[in-house]
Amino acid sequence: MVDKNGATIASAVTNLDLHDIARAAKTYAIKTFYVVTPLSDQKALVGRIVDHWLFGAGARYNPQRRQALELIKITDNIKQTICDIQTQTGQKPITVVTSARQSGKDTSFAKLRHQLMSGIPHLLIFGTAWGVAKDLILEVDHRLSPISGVADYNHLSVRCAAAIIMDRLLTPDSERT
Amino acid sequence: MVDKNGATIASAVTNLDLHDIARAAKTYAIKTFYVVTPLSDQKALVGRIVDHWLFGAGARYNPQRRQALELIKITDNIKQTICDIQTQTGQKPITVVTSARQSGKDTSFAKLRHQLMSGIPHLLIFGTAWGVAKDLILEVDHRLSPISGVADYNHLSVRCAAAIIMDRLLTPDSERT
Repeated sequence: MVDKNGATIASAVTNLDLHDIARAAKTYAIKTFYVVTPLSDQKALVGRIVDHWLFGAGARYNPQRRQALELIKITDNIKQTICDIQTQTGQKPITVVTSARQSGKDTSFAKLRHQLMSGIPHLLIFGTAWGVAKDLILEVDHRLSPISGVADYNHLSVRCAAAIIMDRLLTPDSERT
Repeated sequence: MVDKNGATIASAVTNLDLHDIARAAKTYAIKTFYVVTPLSDQKALVGRIVDHWLFGAGARYNPQRRQALELIKITDNIKQTICDIQTQTGQKPITVVTSARQSGKDTSFAKLRHQLMSGIPHLLIFGTAWGVAKDLILEVDHRLSPISGVADYNHLSVRCAAAIIMDRLLTPDSERT
């Protein structure tokens, strides 16, 4: 990620990001929600949260939450994530980074929506803090168009942006009416 | 609202709901984000959060957040909210409640999308906890279809559901491609 001043950082994991994005992922039939962080304390934190809802008191209190959080896998970096998808599916995933800013060579929602029907696995990458680091953006296959709402304001939380993007890409037209 | 067992309650306000829904509301050019609670401690809490981002250290740290949180108005109940909209716009708003469950007489996204173009103010009602109380549901003009994703799972957070609903209702078709 990058911070407010553009320096490359590893951002902290937010509890509600895990819950909200896992719940949206389950709603849109996403196979795996990878939480990518090189920081061992952050990996331990994610592990503890997931354990609580999968095997601890949380699993009894709210079984629906378990169904969502069991989609989570923790990886060190994007390379490891791609490797895992390849192992699971036998195919190299197409990588798509999301951003709140236009790049001039963005892939449209309509195009990606169409491409997803190919059955090839896709890895959709969301950033926290002030966005995904430039090096990573240069390496991916696609950069998705930013969400433009109605106003000239584009500062959605990553939780809400991820939910909207899944909805735009994955809801069948028949369900949208 | 109702709780897990169906009893009518006043649910607590969550800090991130304020931020996330205000940011989405600003993105989709919503006029006002009413936070409705009869509890005086909850009203005081919302007031303190909003003040921090409008006038306190938050306003200097993140001016974009100020632009979102200044959409917030605190009201006691839905009746007072309707009254305020009538005072502001000179028109009685059409009320629309959202729910994760189908009712058999739901208004479709397509229909509400079309109706919004009339220029009549609409009040879209989102519930926390286990949803909006039955008495309120019976009083509103419309009940919006639940978000159906792809999977047979419908447990989005209110933050993500609100963002998806705004996106479906308010993004022009030309922007969705």
